[in-house]
Formats: sequence, structure tokens, C-alpha cells
Amino acid sequence: MSVTDKHPQDLQLFLDKLGTRLQKTPQKGSVADYIPELARVDPDQFALSICFNDGRQFSTGNSTTKFSIQSISKVFTLAIALGRLGDKLWQRVRKEPSGNPFNSIIQLETEQGIPRNPFINAGAIVTTDSILSGSTPKEALAEILMFVRAAASDDDIYINEAVAKSENQTGHRNYSLAHFMKSMGNIENDCDCTLGTYFHQCAIEMSCEQLARAGRFLSGGTDKHHMIDKQRVRSINSLMMTCGHYDGSGEFAYRVGIPGKSGVGGGILAIVPNQASIAVWSPGLDSCGNSLLGTQALEDLSTHYNWSVFGSPA
Amino acid sequence: MSVTDKHPQDLQLFLDKLGTRLQKTPQKGSVADYIPELARVDPDQFALSICFNDGRQFSTGNSTTKFSIQSISKVFTLAIALGRLGDKLWQRVRKEPSGNPFNSIIQLETEQGIPRNPFINAGAIVTTDSILSGSTPKEALAEILMFVRAAASDDDIYINEAVAKSENQTGHRNYSLAHFMKSMGNIENDCDCTLGTYFHQCAIEMSCEQLARAGRFLSGGTDKHHMIDKQRVRSINSLMMTCGHYDGSGEFAYRVGIPGKSGVGGGILAIVPNQASIAVWSPGLDSCGNSLLGTQALEDLSTHYNWSVFGSPA
Amino acid sequence: MSVTDKHPQDLQLFLDKLGTRLQKTPQKGSVADYIPELARVDPDQFALSICFNDGRQFSTGNSTTKFSIQSISKVFTLAIALGRLGDKLWQRVRKEPSGNPFNSIIQLETEQGIPRNPFINAGAIVTTDSILSGSTPKEALAEILMFVRAAASDDDIYINEAVAKSENQTGHRNYSLAHFMKSMGNIENDCDCTLGTYFHQCAIEMSCEQLARAGRFLSGGTDKHHMIDKQRVRSINSLMMTCGHYDGSGEFAYRVGIPGKSGVGGGILAIVPNQASIAVWSPGLDSCGNSLLGTQALEDLSTHYNWSVFGSPA
Amino acid sequence: MSVTDKHPQDLQLFLDKLGTRLQKTPQKGSVADYIPELARVDPDQFALSICFNDGRQFSTGNSTTKFSIQSISKVFTLAIALGRLGDKLWQRVRKEPSGNPFNSIIQLETEQGIPRNPFINAGAIVTTDSILSGSTPKEALAEILMFVRAAASDDDIYINEAVAKSENQTGHRNYSLAHFMKSMGNIENDCDCTLGTYFHQCAIEMSCEQLARAGRFLSGGTDKHHMIDKQRVRSINSLMMTCGHYDGSGEFAYRVGIPGKSGVGGGILAIVPNQASIAVWSPGLDSCGNSLLGTQALEDLSTHYNWSVFGSPA
Repeated sequence: MSVTDKHPQDLQLFLDKLGTRLQKTPQKGSVADYIPELARVDPDQFALSICFNDGRQFSTGNSTTKFSIQSISKVFTLAIALGRLGDKLWQRVRKEPSGNPFNSIIQLETEQGIPRNPFINAGAIVTTDSILSGSTPKEALAEILMFVRAAASDDDIYINEAVAKSENQTGHRNYSLAHFMKSMGNIENDCDCTLGTYFHQCAIEMSCEQLARAGRFLSGGTDKHHMIDKQRVRSINSLMMTCGHYDGSGEFAYRVGIPGKSGVGGGILAIVPNQASIAVWSPGLDSCGNSLLGTQALEDLSTHYNWSVFGSPA
Repeated sequence: MSVTDKHPQDLQLFLDKLGTRLQKTPQKGSVADYIPELARVDPDQFALSICFNDGRQFSTGNSTTKFSIQSISKVFTLAIALGRLGDKLWQRVRKEPSGNPFNSIIQLETEQGIPRNPFINAGAIVTTDSILSGSTPKEALAEILMFVRAAASDDDIYINEAVAKSENQTGHRNYSLAHFMKSMGNIENDCDCTLGTYFHQCAIEMSCEQLARAGRFLSGGTDKHHMIDKQRVRSINSLMMTCGHYDGSGEFAYRVGIPGKSGVGGGILAIVPNQASIAVWSPGLDSCGNSLLGTQALEDLSTHYNWSVFGSPA
Repeated sequence: MSVTDKHPQDLQLFLDKLGTRLQKTPQKGSVADYIPELARVDPDQFALSICFNDGRQFSTGNSTTKFSIQSISKVFTLAIALGRLGDKLWQRVRKEPSGNPFNSIIQLETEQGIPRNPFINAGAIVTTDSILSGSTPKEALAEILMFVRAAASDDDIYINEAVAKSENQTGHRNYSLAHFMKSMGNIENDCDCTLGTYFHQCAIEMSCEQLARAGRFLSGGTDKHHMIDKQRVRSINSLMMTCGHYDGSGEFAYRVGIPGKSGVGGGILAIVPNQASIAVWSPGLDSCGNSLLGTQALEDLSTHYNWSVFGSPA
Repeated sequence: MSVTDKHPQDLQLFLDKLGTRLQKTPQKGSVADYIPELARVDPDQFALSICFNDGRQFSTGNSTTKFSIQSISKVFTLAIALGRLGDKLWQRVRKEPSGNPFNSIIQLETEQGIPRNPFINAGAIVTTDSILSGSTPKEALAEILMFVRAAASDDDIYINEAVAKSENQTGHRNYSLAHFMKSMGNIENDCDCTLGTYFHQCAIEMSCEQLARAGRFLSGGTDKHHMIDKQRVRSINSLMMTCGHYDGSGEFAYRVGIPGKSGVGGGILAIVPNQASIAVWSPGLDSCGNSLLGTQALEDLSTHYNWSVFGSPA
């Protein structure tokens, strides 16, 4: 951060060059095609925004274009669930990387319906189900949206109903996961209610500028301390590090070295602990379902500014 | 570290109290029983040593008692293999958490004989095999021992032949892993040679004081920069974070928040990036094969001094 | 059969003794408890009926008491589906034993949503789905019921709506299987329609006397040749042999030596090829979900009369 | 059989036509390539021999050419093991189809080192290990060879040492299976001894004429009753039906309808209970490792003569 304190123009220049360079990359990955609404997104878009804890924000590319945050929403629902249930949540979902694709059902059968972590689909469905108990889906969604808006200090954040509906109609794999866990006693509400809420939370749309601001409750942003118990910041960041990129989490930690959570909409929220929150977006995905250029951008940025939590090569 | 700069006596006092308190814990876990030589170790031992990058070292408990470092040796062989092969190593072993026990063979079958990471047994056997190519087992072991001694700046480090022999006689699971990978073309040397080398590297004995010093090449110890390419420090630390505790890696990251690698001898090497190297030892293991009290000690220490890489709750 | 030709009274005596002896067995297995309506059945019931191809029928125990045929219905829907689709059915379901419990979902994920055989739940749901295409659930159920009644030459066979409803409410595991296959493109109809039909077919109630008669289209009963293509008799019997008792199919073939299909209601339909159809019922199940006393009865009977297809010890 | 009683020349004609027709088939499958000695076999060979219980034998093709019986040897070792241990054998190996390839190791891990059946590699290794206890490998092999020669009433049957040696050098997958089971306590002897015996038993060479004669102890050949307890005939035939063709067992039962056991040398031993023993050989294999033309020949033969145990379509 000291670098940016002294030379903010350098950072802006670095970001612009980075964006320009990456947009020229021929291999941009594949846009998620299993949700029709997402499949229509122009793959040639790129945006990145960094929000430092002191409030300064730097952006490049289509940084005010809204995109579907998809699984990045799991970070917010996890924060809400931990705030409400505390460690009781861990009776229903574990904290371990899965070693399997994001929508795998195998471990649910061999591990009694307890998902491996809150960032794979099964675990996120359980997390949403835990928030839903005692509320209607509408109330739960209002709470989630309120949390995200407060985190971003921006009320101009909405759910895209068309995307939510599209996911519901094609979400048979998620229905399969939910009913499986219901059969094992790990879903409390009606599967339709839980999944309806889940599909809507995934359909929240934000721009990179909004998402970067919304991540400051995890980077230690000074005006966001009220949003979450201080100890939970570490908890969530650690889970983003070990489980935030599905079966590509080890690779992300190795290359980028900071906690992050991806979504199949092509967004990634990454946290430089104690310093900054970063949002990046490029719709093309790698084979694990993580943004291909987004990961590359974060690796270049983290390497250049020595942001890896795993040591600076001095 | 600033704390210890000002009040080193406070850290010593904290360590002594921590050791005394943990040794009174009734639940100390179970000593590894599948290697007869290890099963005989007195479970009531505890030691911890911290070595800061500036050279100051603080210890408590049986910190000069030698123990079998077992899988902690995988950190050193990974460093050697990366130094020798560079990124070519990753053609033979991946960087992802496994979601399975340390000695599982299932993923080898479903993933064509490529182990998930260098810290589960299969991956460590491949790593050792890669070092062995072009050398005799004796030469490879001499190189490993030389590396460890140089890292610790201490030549009084040896292999316990009785333990190595004991592991060889009872190591049928490791033989199974090696032959499986050989059948898939991922072991270059004779299985007996590779495993002989592997069992010997695991039988290296060190005290906590020695091990803490030996870890400084990963914490950025000033006189250890020559041992490893600077970028590799981050690589190894990231793998220790995501994969260092087998199927308890997510839990360790969540609770302790710094990279670490455990061994079934009851030792853990943990790294506070840019600051310090920590060795802890207590023979009782949890269900994942990680030292029960060792993990607790690291959690208490990391929490007290705000060493988590995932953010300080300021 | 020659034995019974000469001494029919001997067979009746043998059956009565067998029933009396088995009902005294202290270990009767556990009544299926996951469907509330089935959990209420009195576990101390036993019935057996044999119907020879020439029409003579011998019974013992509660042989006119109706019970829920459950998975035995899969034999009838398979016959209908083969009659309608022929070998095209095998593009959607295989013919191999699964090596997994009846409701396992693991192989669906590793084998692209194609179930192993038509007698595990996933495969039976696909089979029902194939019958349903082009019909309403009501029409499909009418066809299934018509087939069963024609096979049994008895119109007094009905679906128990309370059981069907009970299964629907608690059938989350089957919903999970269906949605999983739908996500892989292997369910053509709406999951709710397919499962509604499936739960109703499982809720058909028959007595042992009715079921034994209904099985004669597979034993070669002289007046049942019109019901099914002759080659299909062998096909279905072979599948009953290799896959008819879930993960206990090998054991059943080993002990009893004739094709059979069990249901969690405690019934088993067994076929002595070219000779007779046998129905047995006792609600207590073994760990694989097959009737404990029913299997024992069939083993004793088959051994006594040398009905094993695997050779007579002459 | 009545057909052949009256018109033996018809059967001979049928066999000759069958052989001629199949040898013209363009798709003959792939010769096993993982054992160098087997890979060299000319794929264009075909032989078939039928031996009726009354002693008459009919053959076609290269019926006196010797081939490597490979896994067909498992039938003979199972017979020996059952004769020696009786049902105690089933404490170490089960009777269920595996639902996995012949050399899979996955179920060994999830099922505590107990193989699914005696006809997959792991189960056959355990079976051989049980025979070996109390004997040297040389003695055990002598016993196996003596049993096979007695069954065939032919002493001109030998082990091909070059094949045995070739399998030993390339048999890492089998070493992996054996060491895995040893680590779980399910191999009593030294792995090298057990596997040495196993590789040699697989390297027995027989012609189709010899093998057909050797199978008569399972078809009820009149002069072979002394070789095995009568009840064991059924036991072994049932296992050949449910497990004799690895993960193609269901398909074989469906198409051919009689018990059979295949080997990767391209041979199949099939049993018409109470009637005849059939040996067929064609080196090309299907994707499950079973002889492609051999299976086709047995299907045509069984269909033509109505030998299916699952009912004759009258």
C-alpha cells in the first residue's frame, strides 16, 4: 500500500495497462452456458476495481457494468449465517476443501449429507437454508440484499429476476443436491423455498466498483467494522483461501496468494487482508469454473505489489 | 513481532504458560500406532520453539528432545525438487487439496496416477522419486540431509535407521501407492529404491529448536535467502496452507491462519511469513493425523500475537 | 416339478413346515422405516405361494394378505418398457450390477447420469419415465395396472394411495436421483410427473397368491405367452439374477440360484425358469433391503427341490 | 442335448459355420497389450470346443492351440480354496459383482480391504493367498496344476514361465492391490510369494479342447464328481454368472445366459449346467477385457440350442 500512497498514478497506470493487455489475450475461457441468461453475456468484457481500506478506489475497464455475482454471493450469506448462528453453522457444513467439482454430489453420500464447505453449491444451499429458518424467502432475500448494500454503501444493487428464473428452470443439479441433503435431514425448509432463495441470491448484480467496495468488511475497511464480528473476518478469509475456487483453490492460492471467491458469472472478489478489497470481472471461465482472465489479472497485480500473504521475496 | 521486540520476556512467559497449560489437557490424542517405533513414544511430551527472522529464538518444554519429523520432511524434499525440476514437477503432482485421508488411493485411480499435492503420501513419494532420478538412494538421502542441516545451521541431525526399517516393514500402504503410480507411469525409479529413500527421509529426527531454525528459509530468515528461489517461498507456503494438514487443512487455516505442515510423529512446522518459523511437538494425534496439542498451541499463539495472515482484528 | 407331479401333498406339507419354522426365527430383520406407511406393518407375517406353469398353485401362511410390492413393480414396468421401446431402452439404462446400495447416487455422477440397471431406483425411474413419454401419469399407471392384472388374471389389484402419498412426501432421495438424471438429460418428463408415477407403481398391493400368478409370464406359464416377446423372458430373468437384489444379488444367486426381485415391502418374486413362479413375503429386511425370511424360504425351497439353475448335485 | 444326441453332425456343422463366420468379422477387439508376451499373439485365431457330460466332444478352429488361460485359472483356484477352507473363505472375499473394472482398487479402500468377489484381481489374489498358507509357492502351484490336469484328464498342461515372468515385471497394479490388502490384514503371506504364485497360475496354458474337458467338474461330468463337493458346483457357477466377466457380467448373462469366466488371453470357459462345458478362444478383447468373438460365439451357440438357464422360449 505504501507504493500507492506515494504514487497513486502508478497504480492507475498499471491497472490500465493490465486491462488492455489481458483483453488482447486470445484464450479467454468459455462463458458459462448452463444458465441461458449468462450464456448471452459478451465474453470480451473486462473490469477491475480496487478499494483500499482508507477509501481510495482505483478501477479500469467496464468497472460500472453490472454482472451476475453468482457464487460470490456465498461470501455474504456466510457472513450473515455466521452472525446469526455462530459456530453452530459448522454442525451442518464443514470447512474443508472438497477435491471435487462445485456441483458434485458424491461426497454428500459418503459423508452423510454434510457438505464439505460453504462455498461449494451444496454447502451454500445449507447456508442459505440456515438463514431462511424463521423467515420467508422474501424476508431472507431482503436481509441478504440489505447486507450487500450496506457493505457496498450503495443501494443501487438489485436481483435480476430473469436470471433467477432461468436458474430455477435449469437448476436440476441444485435440486438434486437439496433433495439429497433433505433426505439426510440437513435441509430444514421446503426444498423449493431454500432453492428459490438460493437462486435469487446468486442473481444479484453488481459492478466491479460496487463489489470491490462491498468486500471491505473482509479487508478491514475502517467504516465496516460494525458489519461482522472481528474474528469472523479471519474465518471467512481463510475459507476463501482454502475453498474459494472449487477444485482450483490450491492453484489460486499458489498463483495469487490472497483469499478470493469466484462466481460463474466471471467475477472474483479477492481480499488483501488489512489493506484492500479487489473485484475483477471477465466472463470466460477455466475448466474449474473460475474466471480465466480474472485470475490472471489478480496474479499479475498481487505479484507486482507483493500482496501475497505467503511472504514477500524482499 | 513488534511485541517481542519490546518485550521478549513476555513471549517467553507466554510460551511457558502455554506449555504448562496444554500439558495438563486430559485429551491429548492418540500416538501413531502403525509404526511400531513411533508407538513407543511417551505421549506426555510437549515442546515449542519460535525462531524469528532476526535470529532470536524462544523455546519451551522438551525443545531439545529429538523426534521423528515424518511428513514434515516433505517440505524439504519439495524445496529440493522445485529447485531441481522447477515447474516441471507439476506435471507429475498437482497443487490441490485432496479431500481424502493422507494415504488414500482412490483419487490415484480416478485421476490417472497423478497425486493431488506433494504433501499427501502419494505426492510425496512422487516428489522423492523425482529427486532420486540420476542419483542412488544414498546420494539422494545425503542431499536431503545436507539441505536440512544447512537450513537448521546444525549438523547434528540424523536419520533414525530403526524407524526407517520399521516403516519399510509395515509400509504396505505406501508400497501400494508407489506400485499403483508405477503402473500408471508416474514413478521413474524402482519402487523399492524410491520407497527406501522415502522411508529414510521420514525417519529424520530433529528437536523443536532445530526444526524451528530449519524453517527460516520459508519465513524469510535473513541468512537463508540462498537456499531457495524467492518465488518458491510463496509457492511452498501456499501449499502448506491449502494442503499441509491432510483433510484437516481447512480447519487448520481457519483456526491458526498461517501455513503449516504436520507429521505423524506429532510435530508441526508453521511459518509466519516474513517474520518467524515455529516448531511444535506433541505426539498425540487427532483423527486426521495432526498433532492435537500442537495445533492448539499454534492457534493460541497465533491468536494472541495476531499472526494470522487473514487479517488482524485491530 | 416331477416331484410335485407325483406327490403334490408333499409340497404342501413342505411349505407348511417351512412357514411354521421360519415364523419362529427370532431374527426377522427390520421393517423398512423410511416410509411411514410401511413402518406400521406387523413384522410377524409370512406367506409363500408357488404357481406352476400348468396352473396348479400351492400356498402357505398369510397368502391372501395384500402387501406393498414396492420394487417388485420394476419387473412389470421393465416388461412394458421393453415391449414399447425394445433395445432402445438400453441407451438410457445399463444391464450391470451396481456394487452400491439401491438408492446410491455416486455412479450417476461418475457415469454421466446413466443408471447401472433397471432394478436400482435410478434405473427404475428412467424406465418409468420411458413409459410415461406420450402419456399422462394417469394413463401410464392405468397401463401398468392393466398389465399386472392381466399377468395375475385377477382384477382385484389396486394402488394404495396412502402409501403413494407417503412415499412422495418422504421420497427426497428419489427426487434427488430424478433431478440429477434430468440435469444430465436422461429424464424426458417433468420430474414431478415421473416420480408421481413411480411412487404410485411402487404402491401397488398384491397378495402372495396374486403375485405368484402374476410372475408366470416369466416362468413360461402356458397362457401367458402373449404378454411378452419370448426372448424378453430370458432378458428379464437374467437381470433379476444379476441385479434383482441390489448389492445382495451375488449372495442371492449363490444361495438360492434362481432369478428374483425383492421389494422393501418384504416381498420377493422368484422365477424357476420353464417351471414355476414363486412369491414370498415377510416384512423384515436384511442390511441390503431384501426380505430376510423370504430369502431363507426361497433358499430352503430351491435346495430341497433342486431348482437352482446352476446345476443339480444329482 | 437331445438335439446333439440325434444329430451330432448338425452340431459339428453349426460349429464350423460359426467359426468361419466369426473369423471374417472385421471388428475382433484388441489383444491385451499390458503383458508383452500376450501382446504378441496373432489376433486372427479362433477356437471352440464343447464337451458333453457323456464324454462326447466337438471342436472347431485352432482347438489344439494352447493359449494363456489367465483369469480363467481363478475358477480352479476358487474350487481348491473352497475345498480346503470351505465357507471360511468368505470372511476374506465377498460374492458380489463389483461394478468396477477388474483391477480397480477403489472398493478395497472403501470396504476395508475385502475384495468384492474371487474373480476380480484383488479377490483372486486373496484366494491364491489362502491356498498358499502352509505351502511354498512351488507346492501350491503343483497343487493347482495337478487339479487342472485331473480336471482335464490330461497331463500335458504346463505353466509358461516367460509369461509368468513378464507378468511379474509389469504387474505393478497387482502389486498395488496385494500390498493394499496386506496393509489391511487380508494377505497372510509375503506379497512377493502370493503374487509369484498368482502370476504363475495365470500363465497356465491350455488348448480349447483341454479347457472344455477341464470344465466338466462344473457341468456335472459323470467322472468328475470326486473333484469337488456337489454343492460347490452351484456356488462356483453362480459366481461365474454374476461376477465372471468383470463389469460386463450383466451383459454376458443377458446375452448368453449361462455361467462363464473370461481371461485376458482371450479365452472363456462357459458351463451349461448339467449338460456341457464349453471353451472358446479368440484373443481380441472388448472394453471390459472379455473376448469379443468368444462372447459372440457363445451367444449364438446358446441361443441356437436354447441353453440359456433363464428359460427356453418354447
